Amino acid sequence: MPTTSRPDKAPARASATGRRRDPEASRAAILEAAREAFTERGYARATIRDIARRAGVTHGLVMLHFTSKERLFLAAVPGTRDLTDLVAGDRETLPERIAAGFVERMESNPSGDPFVALLRSAATNEAAAANLYTAMQAHSESAYREALTGDDMDVRIGMLAAQLIGVTFTRYIVKVGRLAEMSADELRVHLSRVLHQILFA
Amino acid sequence: MPTTSRPDKAPARASATGRRRDPEASRAAILEAAREAFTERGYARATIRDIARRAGVTHGLVMLHFTSKERLFLAAVPGTRDLTDLVAGDRETLPERIAAGFVERMESNPSGDPFVALLRSAATNEAAAANLYTAMQAHSESAYREALTGDDMDVRIGMLAAQLIGVTFTRYIVKVGRLAEMSADELRVHLSRVLHQILFA
Repeated sequence: MPTTSRPDKAPARASATGRRRDPEASRAAILEAAREAFTERGYARATIRDIARRAGVTHGLVMLHFTSKERLFLAAVPGTRDLTDLVAGDRETLPERIAAGFVERMESNPSGDPFVALLRSAATNEAAAANLYTAMQAHSESAYREALTGDDMDVRIGMLAAQLIGVTFTRYIVKVGRLAEMSADELRVHLSRVLHQILFA
Repeated sequence: MPTTSRPDKAPARASATGRRRDPEASRAAILEAAREAFTERGYARATIRDIARRAGVTHGLVMLHFTSKERLFLAAVPGTRDLTDLVAGDRETLPERIAAGFVERMESNPSGDPFVALLRSAATNEAAAANLYTAMQAHSESAYREALTGDDMDVRIGMLAAQLIGVTFTRYIVKVGRLAEMSADELRVHLSRVLHQILFA
């Protein structure tokens, strides 16, 4: 069994051979290892090679399951992963659900969030950030397309993402100003209003 | 005369003693030196000491004129510096003027913009970014207060700043996606609409 960088905390893992025989188990092990690696090292510095080693599988198997680091990230962390569930439901209250999901996720664990990963990865590696943004956007457009129509819908989704990126930066990275000082509940209310206008006005 | 880090490019400068005798000349020299230093080194890494040296004045004189690095930055670069002029005028078309000013400034020289400086400084020094955000917010609130009223106006200004930060990040830092692909003119139109809703809806 390959060693991990946290042998004392890592649960006992099946052999690489065993993993290859059970696609569901290896997929789950890769996702768990990816969450660990992204949390510890950040999006830009985490590597597929390290994630494969932590999961006890080969680099090739990770790529077979997830095709790229961006897609693996989006599959592993909350946020974009849950977007399809979030979009299903009443169209009129979609902005409220997006705002509530965003605030709940950020208040409980901002460090594992895709927007925080995006902003932080741009600091060290703008190409990595560009790839991650592109993957997030493709995923969002595909999820929202179920619920939203209209010629400029992709622009509205881009503006909505920009609003969430700006709020993430202000409240969860620099952590100062009105948006950082208000309660989570106030943020949810104000953000619902703004997202509603961006998507539908 | 003190040496600068770009002696071949720096214009000939008056002595420190001469500067102290003419407050207007020393103020102008400090602003010019600050623009140079912020462009070359970025907001977080530029120092008052280096700016003073480039301007041929003392550290104390820079602080006497501008009181902090954040305030010196906001006085030196376009953007917040011009906000008071931008806010003066018809209240209803204020969002259009903000959007047009933002797009024009960013398209011509994004690297000198306060929002780019803010996002980049957070990468290396979150405390510096927090101080800069706080100074930018105080300046914006004071400028907008002339034109805008209402209980939640500071929240709306915070949301407007978040939108501009997110657009800056997407179009001028990671440079991918719908917001990066559209023309400057399209961006101005879409941004005007969103800022109008954020401020007035």
